Amino acid sequence: MNEIRDGHITSPSGFVASATACGLKESGDLDLVLVASKQDCSGAGLFTQNQFPAAPVILDKETLAANPSRLRGIVVNAGIANACTGPAGLKDARATQHHTAQALDCPNESILVLSTGVIGVPLDMQKISSGIQVASQDLSEENGIQAARAIMTTDTRPKHVAFSIPYPEGDVILGGMAKGAGMIHPNMATMLAVLTTDARISAVDLQRILQEAVQESFNQISIDGDTSTNDSVLLLANGASGISIQTEDRLRIFAQALKEVCRMLAQAIVRDGEGASKFVTIEVCDARTNAEARSIAQTIATSPLVKTAFAGGDPNWGRILAAAGRAGVDLDPTRINLWVGSDSGIDLQLVMDGTPLPYDDTQAEAIFCASEFTVRLSLGLGTAETTYWTCDLTHDYVSINADYRT
Amino acid sequence: MNEIRDGHITSPSGFVASATACGLKESGDLDLVLVASKQDCSGAGLFTQNQFPAAPVILDKETLAANPSRLRGIVVNAGIANACTGPAGLKDARATQHHTAQALDCPNESILVLSTGVIGVPLDMQKISSGIQVASQDLSEENGIQAARAIMTTDTRPKHVAFSIPYPEGDVILGGMAKGAGMIHPNMATMLAVLTTDARISAVDLQRILQEAVQESFNQISIDGDTSTNDSVLLLANGASGISIQTEDRLRIFAQALKEVCRMLAQAIVRDGEGASKFVTIEVCDARTNAEARSIAQTIATSPLVKTAFAGGDPNWGRILAAAGRAGVDLDPTRINLWVGSDSGIDLQLVMDGTPLPYDDTQAEAIFCASEFTVRLSLGLGTAETTYWTCDLTHDYVSINADYRT
Repeated sequence: MNEIRDGHITSPSGFVASATACGLKESGDLDLVLVASKQDCSGAGLFTQNQFPAAPVILDKETLAANPSRLRGIVVNAGIANACTGPAGLKDARATQHHTAQALDCPNESILVLSTGVIGVPLDMQKISSGIQVASQDLSEENGIQAARAIMTTDTRPKHVAFSIPYPEGDVILGGMAKGAGMIHPNMATMLAVLTTDARISAVDLQRILQEAVQESFNQISIDGDTSTNDSVLLLANGASGISIQTEDRLRIFAQALKEVCRMLAQAIVRDGEGASKFVTIEVCDARTNAEARSIAQTIATSPLVKTAFAGGDPNWGRILAAAGRAGVDLDPTRINLWVGSDSGIDLQLVMDGTPLPYDDTQAEAIFCASEFTVRLSLGLGTAETTYWTCDLTHDYVSINADYRT
Repeated sequence: MNEIRDGHITSPSGFVASATACGLKESGDLDLVLVASKQDCSGAGLFTQNQFPAAPVILDKETLAANPSRLRGIVVNAGIANACTGPAGLKDARATQHHTAQALDCPNESILVLSTGVIGVPLDMQKISSGIQVASQDLSEENGIQAARAIMTTDTRPKHVAFSIPYPEGDVILGGMAKGAGMIHPNMATMLAVLTTDARISAVDLQRILQEAVQESFNQISIDGDTSTNDSVLLLANGASGISIQTEDRLRIFAQALKEVCRMLAQAIVRDGEGASKFVTIEVCDARTNAEARSIAQTIATSPLVKTAFAGGDPNWGRILAAAGRAGVDLDPTRINLWVGSDSGIDLQLVMDGTPLPYDDTQAEAIFCASEFTVRLSLGLGTAETTYWTCDLTHDYVSINADYRT
């Protein structure tokens, strides 16, 4: 498979998009996106586990369950999350779906809805419905990057990618866009991702491979440990390439590309984390189970003390072990080994069999001061492992989140 | 029971203390404390759940198990945590115990050991042993506050308290001191508390009531969600008042005072939290179980987004609900009610039955900008409840923890 330069959600055949400023963002920036397919799509979606799912999350689950194989488009608004808005919020989400269906000339249940922004504030349906009207007049294959820009909130740059995946009878294209710079920002909420492909794949297969891909990408990142009310990943497959993917062998190739696209978008979110100055990979290996490895990686990746040490370029391995030690996993301290490594190939062991090793301070600081580095923790208990991506916790994170409304 | 003005660990009869600077703190500040009783004490202790317990934690558990009723003193050092130091660290902790036992002329197993400070660095036993020698020459009832000062690391003020508890035959005194300004700071680690009383109570009863008291105090606070390798709470009862507490009725009175002392010390730790500018009480009520209430309170209390909103004085209730929603507890959004309140008696309901209420922005900001306020979340699912204490996440927290070694 090959990455398409500046690829995006309308790189796959048969998809069009448009973005407009309907007035939800006070800045007047683009805030409403339509993504549409001329042909029916099969679709899949994964959604937040938060107990307060936003109205569009509730609606999309219902829509995907009822009509997973004849989807036609997605409408996204940024600026208002339509979360914690009660029954009125669900009515607004349905109205948004209805206006989009009318504009695209399809049934309501062919449209998925995404929202991101302020929690607890009702959508301005006047702005939404005129925005949908305007956007529906400008649908084009040229607007993929503009769409990625329109869904941004505290993001500093659009996140989009596409790959071509070779099959004997020709290439299929897989594109994607995402937003999210904290795992949640209830003033400016949420991680959203939209994925499109011109392959023909059944909704059942799509859902299965999307789940696997998300597990190894969007579920392996943390900026601040908070999970939004709106987090959603949607995938549409319209079959416009004429290439059908059904057998396990052919699905495996597509699934691998899907994982790569999800991983690139997930990593782009971490790299653009609110206030982040460093991108850190946490590898936990030799664990008894994947779940235990993941639990430890996640605890390290979300520890404020670890993340402030990263911010300070401080080779403070004690904080890493202390975080691992409170993850709720039984450990044997005498089997612990810890390394840190940089992209430039330096690999420094800091702890061997539970005992600190003397190390070159200059070398350690060179790694921790780099903009990207890896922490590798071996538990010595088994063969399971996981990889997690996180960023540092900086003054800018506090500024963005503390000073937002002042 | 009555609070004793400027009370401390030598307020109870028969306890003496001393503090010296043995050279572990680079600043030259006091860093070694002895607490001693002329009579044998019964003792109790609670320790960190971290999978990398520091050497003194391992040693104290062993000592308390073997000799819970003939304890004579506690030695505390600040500056080096003696954590992640392997077998050599345990040997050093034993040597520290031995030197103290010699200086106080008692068996090794009559001495408990506490350490706080840098992780992964060996104790300088030369400094420790001369420090113990010096300190043992200066034991006095006058040094309780100095002892509280000597165990400080990133704390900005000493934390100590004492109560007199009236019994028909006279008063018993209960004193305490604590340190800790982040739940953990592996460079300057740990929450430590030492409690003393001149009541006569069996070790078994002591352990039971200490466990209850810690559950409702030190286990209900969070500064940064990190749990140290060294966290310890020790309680010694020397019986010097001549007053014996054995029946359940008499124990209940003492247990209540113990809870109050632990709560005051725990709250003092949060008020002195690294970089903290606000003290926030999180009440979660009408939960199905205490465990569920606690899980939600803890998730709110450790959410970086909630804590930065507190720092910014931002009445951002969406972040509070979003944190509650990811605590792993099944909730019914339509039963949620949320209030915020200030000490000055303002009580503002922000969410009723899951739907946001219109509220006066000025009033809400007045509460969130106060130095102390309360968040109360009703789940509408049962009758269990919990109270948790936390602080805000500020620029100063990042400075203290990111810039520590630079």
